[in-house]
Order: sequence, then structure tokens, then C-alpha cells
Amino acid sequence: MKPTFDTIAYTDAAVVLLDQRALPGTETYLTCPDWQTVAAAITDMVVRGAPAIGITAAYGIALAARAHGADPKALDPGAIEPAFQGLAATRPTAVNLFWALDRMRARLAADPTLAALEAEARAIHDHDRDMCAAIGDHGAALLDPGTRILTHCNTGALATGGAGTALAVIRAAWRDDRLAHVYADETRPYLQGARLTAWELTRDAIPTTVIPDGAAAHLMATGHIDAVIVGADRIAQNGDVANKIGTYGLAILARHHHIPFYVAIPTTTLDLATPTGAEIPIEERPAREVTHVGPTRIVPERAAVRNPAFDITPAALVTAIITERGVLRPPYSDSLTDKA
Amino acid sequence: MKPTFDTIAYTDAAVVLLDQRALPGTETYLTCPDWQTVAAAITDMVVRGAPAIGITAAYGIALAARAHGADPKALDPGAIEPAFQGLAATRPTAVNLFWALDRMRARLAADPTLAALEAEARAIHDHDRDMCAAIGDHGAALLDPGTRILTHCNTGALATGGAGTALAVIRAAWRDDRLAHVYADETRPYLQGARLTAWELTRDAIPTTVIPDGAAAHLMATGHIDAVIVGADRIAQNGDVANKIGTYGLAILARHHHIPFYVAIPTTTLDLATPTGAEIPIEERPAREVTHVGPTRIVPERAAVRNPAFDITPAALVTAIITERGVLRPPYSDSLTDKA
Repeated sequence: MKPTFDTIAYTDAAVVLLDQRALPGTETYLTCPDWQTVAAAITDMVVRGAPAIGITAAYGIALAARAHGADPKALDPGAIEPAFQGLAATRPTAVNLFWALDRMRARLAADPTLAALEAEARAIHDHDRDMCAAIGDHGAALLDPGTRILTHCNTGALATGGAGTALAVIRAAWRDDRLAHVYADETRPYLQGARLTAWELTRDAIPTTVIPDGAAAHLMATGHIDAVIVGADRIAQNGDVANKIGTYGLAILARHHHIPFYVAIPTTTLDLATPTGAEIPIEERPAREVTHVGPTRIVPERAAVRNPAFDITPAALVTAIITERGVLRPPYSDSLTDKA
Repeated sequence: MKPTFDTIAYTDAAVVLLDQRALPGTETYLTCPDWQTVAAAITDMVVRGAPAIGITAAYGIALAARAHGADPKALDPGAIEPAFQGLAATRPTAVNLFWALDRMRARLAADPTLAALEAEARAIHDHDRDMCAAIGDHGAALLDPGTRILTHCNTGALATGGAGTALAVIRAAWRDDRLAHVYADETRPYLQGARLTAWELTRDAIPTTVIPDGAAAHLMATGHIDAVIVGADRIAQNGDVANKIGTYGLAILARHHHIPFYVAIPTTTLDLATPTGAEIPIEERPAREVTHVGPTRIVPERAAVRNPAFDITPAALVTAIITERGVLRPPYSDSLTDKA
């Protein structure tokens, strides 16, 4: 099920990003004429989602190369280095960002031309689209007809170069008549579920109900949820999952209610150099995401705020990891190493 | 620790309510000259919290009596009956509402005068203030010095006639140097934790940090929470707890992390006529509480919404129930019956 909009587009003069900060109200696009604007867009969450961030950063490198030589002669890698540094500094938890930048750096070393860097960025994008489709097919095969899925955050076409990760499974299950309903956690504080997942799925006519994050346990206890499927920003070598704040709690609730808890990822999200989740840094986002919704202040000025962007779900709570190469089962230390 | 504001006041002409819909930004008061305005204020959540609703409704009956005869002659109970009906229909899950109205009805039958009804409503208010103080003392004694407490929703001076239930424990623990910090779940969708609990506690200089509901599990796993204390809207005969949506999930998370989970209530919240939580109706609140925050739409128009106001926490997940008469331990079928 091909998305009906372009989250990320690369033209010969700019990276064009669907501005996700304006959803669900308005569909507007931000044109980034240089890598600095691309980096700011990643930091400011114009684009978000680990795979989409990686693709965007790769195109950002292509833009930096264009600024230093649109003609066929060889590029000076030193001139591109500030773009690598600046783009790497945008979001510290997104392993896909570093993976994409490493691929661009390797291509630059092997073939220091603009054409090579543009081809590499497009290949990263195309590859992600293919991975999404494969993740969807592998995941949908796990689900019985009539399945009601709870998902968290946004892991769809807005977060990737294709149909998504968890949402690729949902889209494929809908296509295959296995999906009855989607419940989308609103996913405070940034509301990716309410604003983005619900926007994306209802645009494709997939029946979707938004719930407050705190209602998930009640819906599980009252028999409305058959499976939980989420994405991930990073998975450590032992299978521990770093994902949007609230994921870990959902995994505990799913276990308590004997509901399978699936994590859908491209294998680029694997970080086998990190032994366990304990070594993954947790980004603390600005307090304003919690204290305000739009112009409305919801927290008194005197109160402090915590806003961790991610949490760590221990591998023991994960029923299976769905990748483009197939479905992985515990023990993940073995199955992840085989697939990576 | 006496609150520095009046949530509910009764004058000889009106019920005056602190308009909690305007918090944390503005402290304004709504004057209700008749019982119909009082009923609308309860429905519209100008005032909320089970004990505060009961007190407000009792004063609403006094206002209805005043409208039908401010002189010393006997009232016609039939003339007050529409007020009983209208006030009872405002919030179906709040057992204190029915308890308060039953007390007013019994007093009306025994002594059908305005003076008697006004005295009864004031007695209900005074009694609640005393119960809050006792709950605080009993609860604080459970806590070691340095305790960091997570609470949910608002169960303070804004929700009761006194210092609160869970927040009475927090206030007493602070007074007794047992409290290190309070984490307040923001409590979507109505944000009682962010807007009200944080407002109330920081006004009294109690150190308070607001967190998204989805961050609770992460804070537990990283060792920031020593105890969870919540209130309740109703407790069944077996100890099952009906409270703000999200409470049940918190109880599961607390159990998973071996953190005590306390419920603080006045015994008026006990509903021994209801055998288990399964018989407690769950109010579904308007979708707009989820779809909008202030003027900002956060859910696309095409998406459906679920907004259950309450959930049921099974008694098995409750470490102890703190009441004005002491601390109750499992099995609650026995301990609740003894105390009620």
C-alpha cells in the first residue's frame, strides 16, 4: 500500500520535507536549500522517525556536496566534513542517522563526486522502501484474521522512506484482510500517535481509534487488543529495545495481559556494537513539549518537568522482532547476530 | 497543611466554586446562584474529585431549599426532588455524590427546614476536612524519610473539602520530613496532574515534577520512584478500585518494579453494595477532551476516539488502602467490611 504523499523528496536544488509539525491540521512542505537547513529540520522535528532521519541526512550530505562542486570534478572531502559533523549532532539516539552518514562517508572516500553521493542517498532511500515492504509482509503473516492492534508513536510512511515499520505491518495486514482495527496511543508529549499515525492511517481508510496513553491497560483488560506492534530507534545486541517513551510500559502491560508484543524494524536499526540497553543514551527533550500544547500552557511555571524521549524495553518482554529478513525469536543475542 | 484557597464555599446566596477549568493559568471563581448552575458546574468539571463533588452537591440541595422557602416554615420535600434528581445525574461514577445526596435526603425527611439542610451540608464539608487530615497522618506513617512519590490525577485540596486524599498523605509526609520529591503524572486527557496537582503542590512549595503518563515505567526502572499513591472514585467490596484512567496501568507497573501501590480514600468512597469492580460502570467522556488541548486540534477529524474516564485496578495489585480510620491490608473483603 503505497503512501499517497512524499515525506522526503530530493530535487537537484533542495531537500523537500513534509512539515510534520503542522499535522494533522495542515499538509505543508519545507524546502531545505542547504545541509544546515536540513540539520535544523531534523533537530526541530520537521522530519522524525529513525529511518526517515537517516535518509534525510544522506540527502543533506548530497546537498553539501552540491554546494562544493556541481561539476564532475572530484570533491574535497574536507569541505564536506562540517556537514557530516553537523548532521551527526542533530539526534543522538537515532542509530540510522550514523549508519546513513557512514555509508555516505564510505562512498565519498571511494568515489568523491557529486553524482556518486546523490546516487548513494537515493539508494539508501530506495533500499528503505524495499525493507518496509518486506517488514510488512513478514509481520502480517504473524497475525490472525480479525486482529486488533495497538501501536505507539509513529512508525509509518512519515517515519521511513516507504510504508513504515510497525505501520507497514498494519498496512500489509489490512491488505491481507487480517486487520480489524488499529488503536493508536496518542504518545505524549509529542503526540506522534494522535497527530501522525492517525492522520496517516485514516488517509488510507484504515479504521483507527486514538486513545490516551493511560487507557491502554484498560483496553487490554477489557479484551480490545490482540497484539501490540511498535517500532524502535535502536536495538542492542541482546535484543533490548530503545523506542519512544511509553514503549517499555506498554511491553509490561502486554505481558501482564498475555498479549504478544512485537517490534518491527529494518536491520539498520540494529546496533550490535552496543551490548545491552543500559549503554544506550536517553535523550532528554525540551520541557516545552510537556508544558505546552500549541499555545496552551498546561503545567504551572513553578513545576519542574521531565521529558525523556526514549525508554528501554528489555528483550525478555519482546515476543518477536520483525525485520525485512524475517521474524526473529528469543534468544535475540543469537537471532540478531545471524540476521545483521 | 491548610490549603491557601477555597475550592468550595457556601454563602447565604450562592455556592462559589474555584473554576478548575482555568487552572493552572488563572484563579477565577464561579458563583452558582441555584442548584441548576451547581449541577452544570459538576457536569462541566468546574469542580471535580469525588469528595468535592459530594460536598458541592450537598450545598446545591441547600440552595434548592433556599429557593423554596428561606423562612423557618417546613419545606415541601417534593419541591426539592428535582434538585436531587438533577444533581444525581451529573457524574455517574462518583459514589460520594450519591452518599452526600442520601444524607441530605435523610435530613430533609427528619427535619424539613432550610436551616437543617444548610447545617447538614456544612457538616458534610467539615467532616471531609477532618477525614483528609486523618488520611494524611495515617499515610505519612507508612513512608520512610526521603521517599519519592508518584501520583496520578488530582486528589488534593482541589478534589476534596480539605487537604486531599493522596495529596493529604503527600502534604503530611512533607510536614513530617519524609518526602523527598513528588512526580505527578500529567494524566491525559484532562491533565489533572499537570494542571491541578502541580499547581496545588508548588503553591505549597512541595518539590514537584510533571511527567508524561508514558514516562512512569521509565522512571520506575531507573530508580526514581519509591511509592505510588493515588486516590479512588469508588472501591468495591472486594477492594477493586475505580479511579482515573491510567491508574490500573500504574498499578501493574508498580507491581512489576516491586514498588508499593497505595490508594488513599475516605471511607465514604467505599461501595460495599458493589461486590467487585466488574459491576462499576465506566463513564465515557466527550471525545473533545482527547481531540483538542485548548484551541489546538491534535487528532485528525477522520479518526475515532475512546475516552474512558476510569479504569478498574484489581485489589490484588493494591499494597494497602489508606483511610481516615487507619491503613487496610489484604484481604480487603475482610478489612473493608470492618472499617466501613
